[in-house]
Amino acid sequence: MVSAPIPGGARAKARCDALGVAPYSDSDTGLFRAYLTPAHAAAQEAIGAWMVGAGMVVRLDQAANLIGRYEGSQADAPVLLFGSHIDSVRDAGRYDGPLGVMLGIEVVARLNEAKRRLPFPIEVIAFGDEEGSRFPASMLTSRAVAGTLEADALEVADRDGVTLLDALAAFPARHAELVSASMARPLDVPAGGEDGSWTLKRVQGDGFLRAARTSGSVLAYVEPHIEQGPVLEAEGLAVGTVTGIAAQLRYQVTVSGTAGHAGTTAMGLRRDALTAAAAMILAVESEALAAGGDVVATVGRMAVGPGAVNVIPGKVEYSIDVRSGDPAARDDAAAQIVDTIADIAERRDVEFNIERVQDLPAAPCDPKLIALMDAAIARCGQRPRRLVSGAGHDTMVMAALAPTAMLFIRCAGGVSHNPAESVTDADCAIALDVLTAFVDLLEHDVLA
Amino acid sequence: MVSAPIPGGARAKARCDALGVAPYSDSDTGLFRAYLTPAHAAAQEAIGAWMVGAGMVVRLDQAANLIGRYEGSQADAPVLLFGSHIDSVRDAGRYDGPLGVMLGIEVVARLNEAKRRLPFPIEVIAFGDEEGSRFPASMLTSRAVAGTLEADALEVADRDGVTLLDALAAFPARHAELVSASMARPLDVPAGGEDGSWTLKRVQGDGFLRAARTSGSVLAYVEPHIEQGPVLEAEGLAVGTVTGIAAQLRYQVTVSGTAGHAGTTAMGLRRDALTAAAAMILAVESEALAAGGDVVATVGRMAVGPGAVNVIPGKVEYSIDVRSGDPAARDDAAAQIVDTIADIAERRDVEFNIERVQDLPAAPCDPKLIALMDAAIARCGQRPRRLVSGAGHDTMVMAALAPTAMLFIRCAGGVSHNPAESVTDADCAIALDVLTAFVDLLEHDVLA
Repeated sequence: MVSAPIPGGARAKARCDALGVAPYSDSDTGLFRAYLTPAHAAAQEAIGAWMVGAGMVVRLDQAANLIGRYEGSQADAPVLLFGSHIDSVRDAGRYDGPLGVMLGIEVVARLNEAKRRLPFPIEVIAFGDEEGSRFPASMLTSRAVAGTLEADALEVADRDGVTLLDALAAFPARHAELVSASMARPLDVPAGGEDGSWTLKRVQGDGFLRAARTSGSVLAYVEPHIEQGPVLEAEGLAVGTVTGIAAQLRYQVTVSGTAGHAGTTAMGLRRDALTAAAAMILAVESEALAAGGDVVATVGRMAVGPGAVNVIPGKVEYSIDVRSGDPAARDDAAAQIVDTIADIAERRDVEFNIERVQDLPAAPCDPKLIALMDAAIARCGQRPRRLVSGAGHDTMVMAALAPTAMLFIRCAGGVSHNPAESVTDADCAIALDVLTAFVDLLEHDVLA
Repeated sequence: MVSAPIPGGARAKARCDALGVAPYSDSDTGLFRAYLTPAHAAAQEAIGAWMVGAGMVVRLDQAANLIGRYEGSQADAPVLLFGSHIDSVRDAGRYDGPLGVMLGIEVVARLNEAKRRLPFPIEVIAFGDEEGSRFPASMLTSRAVAGTLEADALEVADRDGVTLLDALAAFPARHAELVSASMARPLDVPAGGEDGSWTLKRVQGDGFLRAARTSGSVLAYVEPHIEQGPVLEAEGLAVGTVTGIAAQLRYQVTVSGTAGHAGTTAMGLRRDALTAAAAMILAVESEALAAGGDVVATVGRMAVGPGAVNVIPGKVEYSIDVRSGDPAARDDAAAQIVDTIADIAERRDVEFNIERVQDLPAAPCDPKLIALMDAAIARCGQRPRRLVSGAGHDTMVMAALAPTAMLFIRCAGGVSHNPAESVTDADCAIALDVLTAFVDLLEHDVLA
């Protein structure tokens, strides 16, 4: 019995669903797939097989990233690289990361079905670590590929004391059991053959940094990803073009007043650290709203001391996170926030200390690729919508190596990092059409 | 060598200081004196000796409260009872509680020096448990004396599993080692003799409730206590007359919004539980200020979830504590607060739940005794100032047994429950003069 093939968009989604449970999860009660774990190896086995099915040859690079390659008409041309990550946070949704990999595979599957070769090779890369769920660092694997990782960044260990390099050395051994494939093929010879088999080279920990690709070897890095925010849904759009990863500032604020008895201290004599902090939190919100555009500012973490029902708070600590695709807008908003909360501290006679704890620059996507993506969206009958990614993605790392583009896909309620993460078959189908059109337009551009 | 006697006010303070360290503290690093501990027993020994020195006979009641008695001209007349507690919180100040006991002893010492007998006996009671530092209950000992304790309230155990009744049964045995006094004298025969010795009866756990005094046996309960608030200091006053213990309402509030990615959720699409809670906290403050008078309202405890720097808070829980000496003012303010935060929840599209978790009625002091205390203050050349006690005291319990009065004594910065708790010799001297004048006025009133 032959059933009709499942459409590519729905299949990409279904494959993410398939990877949502054991053995593709290290947890029995939800999805948790960390870097270099049995679940990671199992997921690579499944995805590798899907890559082979789409006509690709498969290999692991020195950072244990899984890569499928579909040759172009010119084997030595710079590669079009589709990618995203296949690790997850704890108790994760199924689409954050894997959907980008699956859509990349589907783009290639269409080309392969049509027996069509482009003037450039296409690779699909499944990054092993973006979330930083295992080691105290994130985006280790894209940083390895982009060549931006320093050697001392490898000196990390997980909660059990296993170092990154030990985990990496041990990984193919566990992996071998799962794939029952030869581990002897050298890295620089892509594995996989006409018979659809694929093999893996033993990954050497000390070679991690050699996963770096050379400048000019990547034509473009394209990452499809769920939006993880509510903008597309609010506007009734399936997909959107990402203009870049927002610049991000983080502050840690301490407000000190005077703790006192809640029953005995008249209102007029208080130096309440919490009411002062409350006024500041509202100022963070109102300054972000006043800044407009894509500026967002959030107080996400807060601790109130001493924290007793009958004691006026004497100390409050909280975080501020400010982002915008436009670094100047971000900095203006942040400066305004800092000024306003300083005024509040003075007016309420509390001491305050603010420390800038993080300053990540913006990572703009490539203007030409942004325009191509908009054009691809329009060609598929959708309304182009540009938006900034407030969240970080491998794209921000890969921007150091190649021109980048991102396609956001609508997700229900903007919910992410949560089992309730949800996308529709229809949106995945639109995304696949857009990515296919994008490849067509890029081909046209390269040939022009 | 005979030195000049230390003045009574300064001596009362010095005795509190003496009790601030081991063996009168169960901690080597600060003051912590819980009920029925070695430190409690040691403090009783010292205070009992001071009571004897002031001309009193000393006994323990069935709840292990230490009592000194100075007979009046009519032995069967209702007793004027000075009292406060000698237990403490952890890492306590030295005056919260003990100062009231020491000032009571000094009042008697003056009468004794003058060989003066009043038409009523005076007793000074050192309550063993007000703070609730050992058992999960507070004011156990004044509730026993006032007769408001239910039998099942005795079924409590400390963190080590020792029950109240076991601790009580074991207490005199330890105590005996310290006082080397006879343990055989029955409770109803006051101990202590012409030679200044004093003895203790064995306290029977099962007799705890028999510490209850009969209605009409107490002429007045008078508690001198540090203010634990900043009002007297702010107005440059040494002492103040307490009009009652504030009525107290406590609420627990839960605000639920939608957790979301701090980078990807546009400001206009947020349902931030923390910014909503911040607006509510400011409303709690402004409604209390608007209510005026002695109304105070405090958010002291707050928890923000999920509590990550890069996640918009989805859930906030916080406490509200509302107090006033005027129950109607308290209830009006609380109703206004609840209305306002409900409006905020609706306006910000967050869910909220509010639960009334405690409703303590006001415990007004006796109007006639309040007037006498004011008159005593005026007689000592001080400006009378009435104020409500926002904090709970044994007075609120004793009000069920007898007319009550409280004298507040200025403490530096309103600081209490803290080693930095501080009073001056001069203020203690004024307090002692006021209490002495109060006794004179009460005598006049009784004879009238």
